[in-house]
Amino acid sequence: MSYDNDNIFAKIMRNEIPSEKVYEDDHTLVIMDIMPRADGHVLVIPKTPARNMLDASATQLSACLATVQKISHAALKAFDADGITLQQFNEAAGGQEVFHLHFHVLPRQTGDKLRPPGNMEDAEIIAANAAKIRQALG
Amino acid sequence: MSYDNDNIFAKIMRNEIPSEKVYEDDHTLVIMDIMPRADGHVLVIPKTPARNMLDASATQLSACLATVQKISHAALKAFDADGITLQQFNEAAGGQEVFHLHFHVLPRQTGDKLRPPGNMEDAEIIAANAAKIRQALG
Repeated sequence: MSYDNDNIFAKIMRNEIPSEKVYEDDHTLVIMDIMPRADGHVLVIPKTPARNMLDASATQLSACLATVQKISHAALKAFDADGITLQQFNEAAGGQEVFHLHFHVLPRQTGDKLRPPGNMEDAEIIAANAAKIRQALG
Repeated sequence: MSYDNDNIFAKIMRNEIPSEKVYEDDHTLVIMDIMPRADGHVLVIPKTPARNMLDASATQLSACLATVQKISHAALKAFDADGITLQQFNEAAGGQEVFHLHFHVLPRQTGDKLRPPGNMEDAEIIAANAAKIRQALG
């Protein structure tokens, strides 16, 4: 399986389509999921091409996990959350819809249920939740 | 949150309770999930203590992801699978039940659904699936 340079996240990184960016460093970018399954649902992606975990380099995986950890702590603080669910999908059968490696970070509240997938959130709510995470990152 | 030395995976690593081991290297161990949500559902855990992703070291996370990738390729081959779903739960609210860091690697077939959690599989089936993955690892 190869990497398609016209996937949505590649376009976001080329600023060809908009996104709500939360954090970036040299190797990774964090954006809000526009169909959040929990408040503060973000995506951690490497800045370099990888289709998914299966073809990612050790450097990409390490960089993504470091950012997953950092953004998880910020999200716990931002949403006064009780836990984090981490999901990462590989190939369509594995649940993957955008073919650039990404990790889903989902802040969880005790007793909550993840919302069903596929429901677009209002842009204002997404922006407000992004601001909360940015503030928690300091 | 602290690390409890009496969690099930710590006991497995001390050989105090049995497990179906699939793979190990210096830093990580892979065991079969005894309540698999898909055929070939395995758990990748670091050999050193970490409660979950939130307190894990960069070294632990990198080692786990390297093993996740390696075992994912083997599982794809062993089960002629079409994709991999990766899950990792942090704190009870995040879905965590055993408080030693672990990554769930779930081989997926196109159009399948994950089985409901909490159903113990027959030991013979678990052992046979472990053998398939070991063989695919070569």
